[in-house]
Amino acid sequence: MEGLKAILLICDGMADRPVPQLGARTPLEAADNVNMNTLALQGECGLMDPIAPGVRPGSDTSHLAILGYDPYTVYTGRGPFEAAGIGMDVRRGDIAFRCNFSTVDASMVVTDRRAGRIEKGTDQLAAAVNGMQIEDITCYFKESVAHRGALVLRGPGLGAAVTDTDPHEAGAKVHGAEPCDPNDEASAKTARIVNEFVRRSYDLLKNHAVNKQREAEGKLPANIILPRGAGMAPHLESFQEKYRLKGAAVVETGLIAGIAVYLGMDLIEAPGATGGLDSDIMAMGRAVLKALDDHNFLLCNIKGPDVAGHDGLPDAKVAMIQRIDEVVGMLMESVDELTYIVLAADHASPISVKDHSGDSVPIAFWGPDVRVDSVQAYDERSVIGGGLVRIRGTDLMNILTDLMGTQEKFGA
Amino acid sequence: MEGLKAILLICDGMADRPVPQLGARTPLEAADNVNMNTLALQGECGLMDPIAPGVRPGSDTSHLAILGYDPYTVYTGRGPFEAAGIGMDVRRGDIAFRCNFSTVDASMVVTDRRAGRIEKGTDQLAAAVNGMQIEDITCYFKESVAHRGALVLRGPGLGAAVTDTDPHEAGAKVHGAEPCDPNDEASAKTARIVNEFVRRSYDLLKNHAVNKQREAEGKLPANIILPRGAGMAPHLESFQEKYRLKGAAVVETGLIAGIAVYLGMDLIEAPGATGGLDSDIMAMGRAVLKALDDHNFLLCNIKGPDVAGHDGLPDAKVAMIQRIDEVVGMLMESVDELTYIVLAADHASPISVKDHSGDSVPIAFWGPDVRVDSVQAYDERSVIGGGLVRIRGTDLMNILTDLMGTQEKFGA
Repeated sequence: MEGLKAILLICDGMADRPVPQLGARTPLEAADNVNMNTLALQGECGLMDPIAPGVRPGSDTSHLAILGYDPYTVYTGRGPFEAAGIGMDVRRGDIAFRCNFSTVDASMVVTDRRAGRIEKGTDQLAAAVNGMQIEDITCYFKESVAHRGALVLRGPGLGAAVTDTDPHEAGAKVHGAEPCDPNDEASAKTARIVNEFVRRSYDLLKNHAVNKQREAEGKLPANIILPRGAGMAPHLESFQEKYRLKGAAVVETGLIAGIAVYLGMDLIEAPGATGGLDSDIMAMGRAVLKALDDHNFLLCNIKGPDVAGHDGLPDAKVAMIQRIDEVVGMLMESVDELTYIVLAADHASPISVKDHSGDSVPIAFWGPDVRVDSVQAYDERSVIGGGLVRIRGTDLMNILTDLMGTQEKFGA
Repeated sequence: MEGLKAILLICDGMADRPVPQLGARTPLEAADNVNMNTLALQGECGLMDPIAPGVRPGSDTSHLAILGYDPYTVYTGRGPFEAAGIGMDVRRGDIAFRCNFSTVDASMVVTDRRAGRIEKGTDQLAAAVNGMQIEDITCYFKESVAHRGALVLRGPGLGAAVTDTDPHEAGAKVHGAEPCDPNDEASAKTARIVNEFVRRSYDLLKNHAVNKQREAEGKLPANIILPRGAGMAPHLESFQEKYRLKGAAVVETGLIAGIAVYLGMDLIEAPGATGGLDSDIMAMGRAVLKALDDHNFLLCNIKGPDVAGHDGLPDAKVAMIQRIDEVVGMLMESVDELTYIVLAADHASPISVKDHSGDSVPIAFWGPDVRVDSVQAYDERSVIGGGLVRIRGTDLMNILTDLMGTQEKFGA
């Protein structure tokens, strides 16, 4: 495409706190990230609170915020984004769940939450339950990878505030879904439908040919489906409508892919992108560059730093950052002078926490016409004093579309 | 208690503006506050707007905000917190007032708003009016210190938007309470009830034995009760429910004690805490430390700097800050390595203003895992450039519970 373009590079969980093993430096401070530092030196920097100061974001809520959709308004659960991410049709008002194929005994006690980590045949099992009618509700079900799947309920009068049917541990009985508030009739209806879906899934799957075959092979049958993480599908203006930008995403996780799909962005596959520390992230960078031929906005999420954070591995996190730094260098060298690069994290995943934290993250805008500030390096503390000072996730796209000249004036 | 703990030390009204008598330094800048400076050096610092930039907070609204309860949502007046602070049962939807025992003549002209600063017998006077029924409303009244008390109205259909009955000056007639909006029927009902309560209080108190005795001694009778500062009791999730922290408060004023009680925090008495410049604040510090044995969150409010600010006394404010600095040093030396100290003010009370102002205040987080920044000293201008940059009061508890690991993730 012609004209101004942008790459939003989100390094998942990259921000951190001072790590004793790194001499009280953060992984970004300890890393040899010369290209990121050059980007910061030539760009405008600051701190960003993905949601708000101190608030611990999920990857879903942070990406919604960073793409300009206030999660406090639109988010009730990850179900709809998971379902969209595996290609299901999800419509406003649908109630969507993440699901596991599991194994239960005849008294509904879960013997394995992952049905012996089933790998094959889930498409046939899914076909057996997909399209089920319960009362005036249609139940759409689709398998995902391994033992995973998603359930979408469509029909009138449904609510999303229901408890999980998955007991989250083996040896426990399947839970009956319940409305969180007994006076919430819409959620009570959803609970009733889900419980019936679970019951019927057992009837339909227990003697299914796939399971007969598994049992003959000494494997656990995938004889029930257990939904959890209910969420109501929100109405989200498409990314293109909202920003007049043609967007695509090169990402590694189903959840973030689901958000991109939900917003109508194109998903671009990158060969070798695994979501792990071994991911071929340079291939992702090349996929981003290629996609700029026919898109003017590219979201790229590299999952590795978050993986190292969750595992509490400082050296792996530093190494991952250095690998990302090479991608940053490649992108800076390859793009034309009309392309912005925004470098950020969606949250911190500190080594000490082994989970997401509410710390602010460094952000840098690089490209034509930015007000270059005095920041010399890209890390949590070097960006203090930058021109962006401290912004929120929901500010990012406003700043970017302002630079790109695609934003309408508010007022006259 | 085991695990991470926190002390939130609020130095009431400590922030200020440059004071000519102090060589255009603020009291914090002029003070020898070496321990605060060490805390800032070892911590993460910034500016905080208790409510929002430039907004002048009350002590009640700022403490609500700092404890994570948005005052714009929950606050309609100080009455409910005053009433809770003196041990009254205050329930959601009650209308509560601060009251004075006053002296009126037979034509309802106030001759002394404080009933000759009555010290004794108000419990008997209160008993004479407590429990009064007016229409379908029950009126609960309790005495506080000296001429003060609180009134709680309980029953259906009440509003809080009514004017005061206290004329706020001697020589004026008692005001009839009126609804702020004549079309607001709920507040009109409250005004009607309050006016009847005031009328009956005069009937019940004018010949009361306590007042007969006072008149015999040449003292002014406390022959009427004048309510003011109406507020509707909000539903506030308890501090423990909201944060999963067991909280206690060591504070010097009834209003802040009322907020703590309202949130279900334990109140800890410190001997010698007077709320004045002479207060034994080291005893407060010791009470804080002792309370950490069975609590993991301690709110401590030291009132002295606000008193000096209201009185316009720069040297007294500097001296008070230096006395607080000793408490800070004692706390830093005494706590274990798992305890956070957050040092802040609830608002500025500038010497030049002699009242609360909307200036930002310095804040510092000190304790395990904070992103120590380059700030070297604790005062209004030295914290500029700190890692917190500029936060709001309602951010404070999010940042703290993120550090303490008690906050749930928003999203997945």
